[in-house]
Amino acid sequence: MGKGTVVMKFGGTSVADAERLKRAAARIVRKREEGYDVVAVLSARGKETDRLIADAFEVSETPDPREMDMLLSTGERISCALCAMAIHDLGQEAVSLTGSQAGIVTDTSHTKARILDVRADRIFEALGQGEIVLVAGFQGVSTDRDVTTLGRGGSDTTAVALAAALGADVCEIYTDVPGVFSADPRIVPDARKLDSVSFEEMLEMSASGAGVLQLRSVEYARNHGVRIHCRSSFDESTGTIVVSEQETMENPLITAVTHSTGESRVTLQGVPDTPGAAGRIATVLAEANVNVDMIIQNEPVTEGQRADMSFTVPRDDLRTAREALEPLCDELGIAAIVSDEAMGKVSVIGAGMKTHPGVAAKVFTVLGEEGINIEMIATSPIKISCVVAADRVPDAVRALHSAFELSGEDTIRVEEPFGGSAA
Amino acid sequence: MGKGTVVMKFGGTSVADAERLKRAAARIVRKREEGYDVVAVLSARGKETDRLIADAFEVSETPDPREMDMLLSTGERISCALCAMAIHDLGQEAVSLTGSQAGIVTDTSHTKARILDVRADRIFEALGQGEIVLVAGFQGVSTDRDVTTLGRGGSDTTAVALAAALGADVCEIYTDVPGVFSADPRIVPDARKLDSVSFEEMLEMSASGAGVLQLRSVEYARNHGVRIHCRSSFDESTGTIVVSEQETMENPLITAVTHSTGESRVTLQGVPDTPGAAGRIATVLAEANVNVDMIIQNEPVTEGQRADMSFTVPRDDLRTAREALEPLCDELGIAAIVSDEAMGKVSVIGAGMKTHPGVAAKVFTVLGEEGINIEMIATSPIKISCVVAADRVPDAVRALHSAFELSGEDTIRVEEPFGGSAA
Repeated sequence: MGKGTVVMKFGGTSVADAERLKRAAARIVRKREEGYDVVAVLSARGKETDRLIADAFEVSETPDPREMDMLLSTGERISCALCAMAIHDLGQEAVSLTGSQAGIVTDTSHTKARILDVRADRIFEALGQGEIVLVAGFQGVSTDRDVTTLGRGGSDTTAVALAAALGADVCEIYTDVPGVFSADPRIVPDARKLDSVSFEEMLEMSASGAGVLQLRSVEYARNHGVRIHCRSSFDESTGTIVVSEQETMENPLITAVTHSTGESRVTLQGVPDTPGAAGRIATVLAEANVNVDMIIQNEPVTEGQRADMSFTVPRDDLRTAREALEPLCDELGIAAIVSDEAMGKVSVIGAGMKTHPGVAAKVFTVLGEEGINIEMIATSPIKISCVVAADRVPDAVRALHSAFELSGEDTIRVEEPFGGSAA
Repeated sequence: MGKGTVVMKFGGTSVADAERLKRAAARIVRKREEGYDVVAVLSARGKETDRLIADAFEVSETPDPREMDMLLSTGERISCALCAMAIHDLGQEAVSLTGSQAGIVTDTSHTKARILDVRADRIFEALGQGEIVLVAGFQGVSTDRDVTTLGRGGSDTTAVALAAALGADVCEIYTDVPGVFSADPRIVPDARKLDSVSFEEMLEMSASGAGVLQLRSVEYARNHGVRIHCRSSFDESTGTIVVSEQETMENPLITAVTHSTGESRVTLQGVPDTPGAAGRIATVLAEANVNVDMIIQNEPVTEGQRADMSFTVPRDDLRTAREALEPLCDELGIAAIVSDEAMGKVSVIGAGMKTHPGVAAKVFTVLGEEGINIEMIATSPIKISCVVAADRVPDAVRALHSAFELSGEDTIRVEEPFGGSAA
């Protein structure tokens, strides 16, 4: 039809029941009727993936990864087949494709495969015949011809990868919120929907608790220059566009405050100051599949003394982390493992921060004025994260959102930076 | 291992829950440990297919057949992936394959595809590596590269087709009964488990109500010389072997009595005796997808007069049949459509019948002595079927089973045929 190609991605909640699935189908059909070539990527319905995982663990305590992929990949296929049926009823032609049929070629790392290539011949063929193409998200076929999955949230990555391969105008990610917000609206009622964010900001936001977009898909989009439009599946309003930094008109000093409340802190007391000790600890945790976030080690005051090492892990991984580390106590002579379950993290993110010092100082001051103790700190050029007690996270988010004046119509722009200097 | 190849097929009830699935896995592993190369074909779990069908009809009143196949094919994949996990836990290597990966190539008739070719390279490869191969039953890939399904019960056909392609020693069909019986044991408590039946007999039995084996798979096995062993998934006892007639030592006069109670009879009164009327009626029913079994038309006594035509249909199709035929009444000038819902069918089957007249006479006599009215009769060289009132079917089965002395250790052999002559 010559109006270009659009990739639309619908998550599990958007196809959870017959009514929602038909609504997604109607939305896809409207886009087609506007004259676009349409490729839609769907996730598994609602709790389908959880059900399949439960089935697997009922049969085996350690399900084989290759078979896990074969099992889980069925969820998205079901969504696509059902959606194609609904689209037919609305008078458009549609064809559902598995990840394999869609040409999503991955490596052989089952349950966490990486996309190596997108061989979209079959999609082009179907689009050429005027068909809407529905692609099962989250999955591909490995170079060994086995079904693979991309890990949880992988459907976003499928959508972005297809948008890149098809040269799509935009990759629309439909979700149950209207876009990306300056803070979680459940905590900050006057949080502002952002019209646009840069890839870099979005990466930091995804990494620090904003659940809207999957980190990896944002990375893929940045690397391949794919324009993401993150929007509501419930109305027609414009959502948030994720664009490269050059495209943003001006860099806001602070774009958003993100948070998470599901962190735990582990402190290893009396770690010997010998080469390799830290490496040994990190290796053990990686082998146990524990995702370590912040790591802090205080230097021993005098040589040969012992140091304390602290790090944060998702609360769900705390037990695994402790169990993995316990054998190391003897091996390395660590004095004790101390953990603090109920930790959270609050982060301020903004591309303008790069060129404007003083943001960190303001963050610390604001939290201090609220009587919130900062346990750990981590920074990047466009982000400052503070670990605080989990029950103080909402206060911290509200205080920072307010101090940086993120509600209202406009964010603070770099042209009028907020004062303060030391960092 | 050089001991030959065995194909094992497990139905939906044999993999319905985790416990049964593990039991099937253990059985597969034992066969492998005996030294065989093992290919197992699995059906979808318990009510999985019904659930998927319900999901489809919730979304669309007329689900697209291609998408229906994409949807339904997931059920068997789930079974195979889960079973592979269970087999790994038992210490054997296993790999699950979709119908497509297993090389089951079909035509493009969605929801009722026919197998065109089995390209078993990938199976041979896996067997060569010592792996147990699990193949998703009931499905294949079309020459258009789309997922197809073979129709209900198609997993039997998958198993037989693979056994043929792999040159397997035997295709074992595991089921919840110990084999094929001389009559339904629920009706005839002393029904005998048959050690062997010929393909021809099994075909007639499958077609006339014996639910153990799917008609089409028996046909495929006969055409490709595949030995079927139909046996219990609950114990190790030998079941029933389906073999070619040459292999059976001697032909029993009567092998079994089969029945069905879900028939309805439709009678079209006053069908004009014009060429094409019967063809028109049959076409209308075929287009409505109604499976017509017996058809009887009485000849008009004098030329130009009208005839009555009767046929049986599955009771579930009665309404559809009537609705399809009603427009024909005006078109052809049929006087009335009369239907009788509660009909059944009882059949006696035996390869020995071919060379021994008198069987029909005995059947009619036995039923007459029981006071059971025969409504319609159909015969083949090795089968006599009588339509009777549904509520008399159990009596008819018991009377015939007893009259032909089918219980006990031996069936009546053709060497000592039972008397009677007219037929």
